[in-house]
Amino acid sequence: MIQQLREQLVDLHHELIRWNLVVWTAGNVSARVPGEDLFVIKPSGVSYDALTPESMVVCDLDGRLVEGDLSPSSDTAAHAYVYKHRPDVGGVVHTHSPYATAWAARGEPIPCVLTAMADEFGGEIPVGPFAIIGDDSIGRGIVETLANHRSPAVLMRSHGPFTIGKDAKAAVKAAVMCEDVARTVHIAQQFGPVEPVDKAAVDRLYDRYQNVYGQP
Amino acid sequence: MIQQLREQLVDLHHELIRWNLVVWTAGNVSARVPGEDLFVIKPSGVSYDALTPESMVVCDLDGRLVEGDLSPSSDTAAHAYVYKHRPDVGGVVHTHSPYATAWAARGEPIPCVLTAMADEFGGEIPVGPFAIIGDDSIGRGIVETLANHRSPAVLMRSHGPFTIGKDAKAAVKAAVMCEDVARTVHIAQQFGPVEPVDKAAVDRLYDRYQNVYGQP
Amino acid sequence: MIQQLREQLVDLHHELIRWNLVVWTAGNVSARVPGEDLFVIKPSGVSYDALTPESMVVCDLDGRLVEGDLSPSSDTAAHAYVYKHRPDVGGVVHTHSPYATAWAARGEPIPCVLTAMADEFGGEIPVGPFAIIGDDSIGRGIVETLANHRSPAVLMRSHGPFTIGKDAKAAVKAAVMCEDVARTVHIAQQFGPVEPVDKAAVDRLYDRYQNVYGQP
Amino acid sequence: MIQQLREQLVDLHHELIRWNLVVWTAGNVSARVPGEDLFVIKPSGVSYDALTPESMVVCDLDGRLVEGDLSPSSDTAAHAYVYKHRPDVGGVVHTHSPYATAWAARGEPIPCVLTAMADEFGGEIPVGPFAIIGDDSIGRGIVETLANHRSPAVLMRSHGPFTIGKDAKAAVKAAVMCEDVARTVHIAQQFGPVEPVDKAAVDRLYDRYQNVYGQP
Repeated sequence: MIQQLREQLVDLHHELIRWNLVVWTAGNVSARVPGEDLFVIKPSGVSYDALTPESMVVCDLDGRLVEGDLSPSSDTAAHAYVYKHRPDVGGVVHTHSPYATAWAARGEPIPCVLTAMADEFGGEIPVGPFAIIGDDSIGRGIVETLANHRSPAVLMRSHGPFTIGKDAKAAVKAAVMCEDVARTVHIAQQFGPVEPVDKAAVDRLYDRYQNVYGQP
Repeated sequence: MIQQLREQLVDLHHELIRWNLVVWTAGNVSARVPGEDLFVIKPSGVSYDALTPESMVVCDLDGRLVEGDLSPSSDTAAHAYVYKHRPDVGGVVHTHSPYATAWAARGEPIPCVLTAMADEFGGEIPVGPFAIIGDDSIGRGIVETLANHRSPAVLMRSHGPFTIGKDAKAAVKAAVMCEDVARTVHIAQQFGPVEPVDKAAVDRLYDRYQNVYGQP
Repeated sequence: MIQQLREQLVDLHHELIRWNLVVWTAGNVSARVPGEDLFVIKPSGVSYDALTPESMVVCDLDGRLVEGDLSPSSDTAAHAYVYKHRPDVGGVVHTHSPYATAWAARGEPIPCVLTAMADEFGGEIPVGPFAIIGDDSIGRGIVETLANHRSPAVLMRSHGPFTIGKDAKAAVKAAVMCEDVARTVHIAQQFGPVEPVDKAAVDRLYDRYQNVYGQP
Repeated sequence: MIQQLREQLVDLHHELIRWNLVVWTAGNVSARVPGEDLFVIKPSGVSYDALTPESMVVCDLDGRLVEGDLSPSSDTAAHAYVYKHRPDVGGVVHTHSPYATAWAARGEPIPCVLTAMADEFGGEIPVGPFAIIGDDSIGRGIVETLANHRSPAVLMRSHGPFTIGKDAKAAVKAAVMCEDVARTVHIAQQFGPVEPVDKAAVDRLYDRYQNVYGQP
């Protein structure tokens, strides 16, 4: 199972490049190992082209390296905190995707003005607190902010988006959709305020998309 | 014939990616089966890389699955309504392309300020009503709005563009051109209002492009 | 020689795609046949993927088809007019590249605020008159506007850029640089007016770039 | 060693294309030859596709051609000046990447409003003086401006960014990150001023990123 996750993470990091969410080495994906208190994550500062299944590292839920030759991502503590406090989460993604990071820089939630936002996020995409690497404040900020929202994405203040999902692929999807709506809503607002989608419609769209969309 | 349409739809979905109209699985193309009350459409939530001719599904004009192993696109009801009420339409496309969707979010038609808009759209690109998945209100909104315009594109309020064409390729072309002009006109207006193309010139350009442009 | 130009034009049309100057079939490149009153140009409405050396068509300086199985580009009359009235021109390009076309939509010349503009354009990029397909008014607008500028690019009002060069490659380069500076200057001006480069510096930069840059 | 640098520079120029920092031939990378008063640099006006290890040229620290069949980059004098006056610098990059060049056109430093800027730049990205090709004023402007900043990037007024690094790869990374933050901060500021990251946090982030990030 860990071997499968290592391979999947190589592909999912390439999705970050493909959808223009990252430059150079500035983003990472992790996946919880089902049934164990472990997760697999990108090594720190390694370019996406150079990633191999073997280069991925395995950490425990305190962020300590358990398996692997390389140092784990410098965001490992934040991923670990999320897995420890959200047993429902199987994947975490962090990027500095430009439009989502611009909303994060202003500390402004993305309002739910598109049916596609209602589908995926079930409302606005919230802003988390300013927190920097060094303790568990980033992880705590993610978990506390998302506790009050249906959104799988949070914009950490002056930093960038973190997304979660039932598995790593779902978290990558949320990162892709987060940047997509961050961009579209930014563009829309350049000529004035935009009307939010009605709350009842948001609820119906979210319910349908989460339960009917896709293949059974 | 259905087999040919299945193959063509794989290629046309790749065009949505190529021209940056969609992310992840958020867009779909369908094609009417000539001479039958059927159309072929993308399966729901399947990634563009994974699409094969066999994965496409066939539906009737009430949107019911007729042939195929997968669930049809969640926008199938809207496509079906258009085919049922517009016998001249052979292809339908739906995307959330960012600039067109931004105009849709504001509920603002794209004014005809470019000769390229006159060519392809014969005037402004109109806005359709706010409508959500669940009944025939999206399909009805598309058909009623386009009845009053030469444009093959409509911006459904808070949602995104739908385009039609004599076949699926023409509808994809309209989706590509819709996003292109949505972007250019957005950029142009950032420094103030832009003068529309004179109505008589629009008519001459539209007539020429529809009847002379391309190969006989 | 005509065969060489046919092959080169296939490659140069791919450059239009590569640098994001065109979508679908909306742009064209032509090349004068040295020593003859002829030029080679793209056929109308053919996708860039489908272009072959054989698909290119040869026209005379009145825009009449001389050789080839397909109808010439619908912009052929404009290209022909330029070759007829500017014997120094060996290549012409037309696109609807988004930022250049946005300046054209506003009818606003691009001010020379970057050293890269001084290098390639020797000053501002001017705006040509509003003119539509049907007579020689586009060609005339290009020639008359460029007569008063060092710029190899002109922004035809409400339409888009045309560029010229000593050969087709130089005209493509001018189209690429025109969109590049159109975009950068647009972005720069979003936070207020931008100081032009001093006229004497423009002259020195232009002279150096035209005479020293590149390989002897 | 020179052969290795020639090969590496081919790859690094492709990175400029990959990350959308350059169009046509408008950007260059150089690498100091360790232990010698020499550096390797791109030839002038050669397209990125045509670059080979053999096409690269070797110059001394006065910018004179020492080895190679082609004329060196027209920015060679600026690169030479930097190597001569900054013995710690092993690589230099110059581009006209659009967002960074837009800030340069306005002569406005990029404020440190993102944790990613604190990481890589340790504060704002400063603006250097207006200077044109012909003497050592560009090189001097780079060196004097960067003497007062931790940033490896400087925005030369009305021109574009120059970046430095311990080697050519680090300078390319700085160019990539410079454009990335130039874009994100531009987007962020479109809806009003953005709060800078607290100075103490900037120092902690910079220290950590420079000393802990990546592999030992």
